Amino acid sequence: MTMNNKVEIFDTTLRDGEQVPGCQLSTEEKITIARELELLGVDVIEAGFPISSPGDFLSVIGISRAVRDVIVCGLTRAKEEDIDVAAEALRYAKRGRIHTGIGSSDVHIKHKFRSTREQVLEQGVAAVKYAKAKGFEVEFYAEDAGRADLDFLVQMTQAVISAGADVVNIPDTTGYCLPHLYGKRIQYLYDYVSNIDKARISVHCHNDLGMATANTMEGIIHGARQAEVTINGIGERAGNTSLEEVVMTIKTHQDLGLYTNIKTERIYGISQLVSNMMRMPIQPNKAIVGKNAFSHSSGIHQDGFLKHAENYEIINPADVGVGCSSILLTARSGRAALKHRLEILGFKIEGDELNNVYENFLILADEKKQIGDNELVALASSIPVLVR
Amino acid sequence: MTMNNKVEIFDTTLRDGEQVPGCQLSTEEKITIARELELLGVDVIEAGFPISSPGDFLSVIGISRAVRDVIVCGLTRAKEEDIDVAAEALRYAKRGRIHTGIGSSDVHIKHKFRSTREQVLEQGVAAVKYAKAKGFEVEFYAEDAGRADLDFLVQMTQAVISAGADVVNIPDTTGYCLPHLYGKRIQYLYDYVSNIDKARISVHCHNDLGMATANTMEGIIHGARQAEVTINGIGERAGNTSLEEVVMTIKTHQDLGLYTNIKTERIYGISQLVSNMMRMPIQPNKAIVGKNAFSHSSGIHQDGFLKHAENYEIINPADVGVGCSSILLTARSGRAALKHRLEILGFKIEGDELNNVYENFLILADEKKQIGDNELVALASSIPVLVR
Repeated sequence: MTMNNKVEIFDTTLRDGEQVPGCQLSTEEKITIARELELLGVDVIEAGFPISSPGDFLSVIGISRAVRDVIVCGLTRAKEEDIDVAAEALRYAKRGRIHTGIGSSDVHIKHKFRSTREQVLEQGVAAVKYAKAKGFEVEFYAEDAGRADLDFLVQMTQAVISAGADVVNIPDTTGYCLPHLYGKRIQYLYDYVSNIDKARISVHCHNDLGMATANTMEGIIHGARQAEVTINGIGERAGNTSLEEVVMTIKTHQDLGLYTNIKTERIYGISQLVSNMMRMPIQPNKAIVGKNAFSHSSGIHQDGFLKHAENYEIINPADVGVGCSSILLTARSGRAALKHRLEILGFKIEGDELNNVYENFLILADEKKQIGDNELVALASSIPVLVR
Repeated sequence: MTMNNKVEIFDTTLRDGEQVPGCQLSTEEKITIARELELLGVDVIEAGFPISSPGDFLSVIGISRAVRDVIVCGLTRAKEEDIDVAAEALRYAKRGRIHTGIGSSDVHIKHKFRSTREQVLEQGVAAVKYAKAKGFEVEFYAEDAGRADLDFLVQMTQAVISAGADVVNIPDTTGYCLPHLYGKRIQYLYDYVSNIDKARISVHCHNDLGMATANTMEGIIHGARQAEVTINGIGERAGNTSLEEVVMTIKTHQDLGLYTNIKTERIYGISQLVSNMMRMPIQPNKAIVGKNAFSHSSGIHQDGFLKHAENYEIINPADVGVGCSSILLTARSGRAALKHRLEILGFKIEGDELNNVYENFLILADEKKQIGDNELVALASSIPVLVR
């Protein structure tokens, strides 16, 4: 596989996901998720929007200090004060990225910025240069690109790449596009932006019409090499593209010749962790991580499945960390069974930490007779609170 | 709009949806949903799989008697005994359809049917002729068509149309296809099946990789004129294509020049009804019908939205029956407010029925202070039990 076959995974669970009503997290919780995202193998963590609140500012600092092998990204508007604050928050990151941008569609330019194409273009270019001069990697977002005039989008993309943008994000902010149309937008940029080989194109889709994953894949098929996603597809309104759906589509369709760095067997564990911490239940029929995703119910399907799994299954559940059959954990279970199940759920816990979790596990198991994955994740997630 | 621009909506909530663990309904509940589906404007209701159980048999009879303006469809395998039982169950339908079929992919032919291409083709053709001879409309499903050899699929489609199939369903049974590939499959059939103008092509997709809606739309764009869907996208494993997503995509993308008969303002009400009856909660970020689908949370979005709704909204919530702001109903509310809200939720209730619901509403409102849409739907759905 050459580098050009790698699709970078940009996780925005802690930014676009966390802004959903009811999903707010403490800095400690964000750090726990960020560490798990690093173990999962994402390339970029969007950690917050530093100027938006003191809490977000501190979270970006905390995450920057907590992870090592992943780019930490902070969101800004195309304004110097935003970029100053983001740069301050990212100063501890081993590799920091500033994500700045401005509206690109006429509806946003007119009705949100009350501006003109020329003015937003100028402001966007100035922001990229300002962020770049601070020594950061810079990603530019052309907000509402899904509805932008295509030739203006070409002009904007070309200008921000000239100004130094390392990545250009082409978001379908309102979830409007049909897959073939979104794919054509990305193709159009590759056809007409003369300096496009100097940057990575990123796709950021929303699910308002149920098309987020399909649009993301069509963007990738037409040349984009970064996908902006969230765990379980949480996010504003109908949510963002699901990390697990994009990653497993790329893995299942090997004919595409693409790959990601995601350790897929950790998907189920982090899905449960995010669902629990953010209090966002996962619907039973959620693709890949829902509790019915690998359960076969009708007689015809069960019969076909038992004859040959491939009849009705395109993904091996073990590949995403779902045990083929549930393991029942009770107060009679020992440390080894607990440790094994926690590992399947994405938690590597040993020594004193394991003893601590095991003690709490036994108390709970006596009360509840049988402990499910949800409760295990809650127990394991509480480690920082209990022992640190 | 010509007839060829109409996409027929085939709802399989009561068949592919109802077979999900925990979603089983009584005949009375199925009839309640079927009546609401008729009011919603679907073209076909798949009412069950009559040979599978006495309960399903009776439900197909009950639904056949309860609705008038919609085709009632029963599922069968490509077997005479299945077709005999389905025909018996459908005898009260004003317009009945038998949905028969067999596997079309090599993996199904070899590992499920332990048969050959020639044998399944022969069995499929015989089943279509047998069902047709009973005087019913016939739809044929080529199971696992998403993974079938394309030239064999052409051969099978051509043969069943010659045998009298009115509709040919090309299901992506395992949810494997990428949108552009699924679209190409449908296009290939239009290019090579010489008698394709004698039948309607139907698309039936599953959401295992999150592509169900996108695949359905690509199939439609390439010529299919029936979409098989469920309310809220419930169904086996990761579920079926969502009715609401397909219908609202067609309505939002008027550039496609297509339409359905769905009264979209009834979508939210039936979504709540199905969720409640089937005990399948709707995730907050579900497209169109989730509780966050039209809520704007981040400061940037709220600001943009307040300046001009179209900045962040491609669908007017009122178009799908979601009130712009919640109406709070309490024990101080009168019959008129209750009636108004019930109408928004898809229930037209008057006279004695309204009095009955109002009495129960007041008892509940005294207990719970404030009554949400969930509770209203539960109250309204219980009418048949209370007053008939």
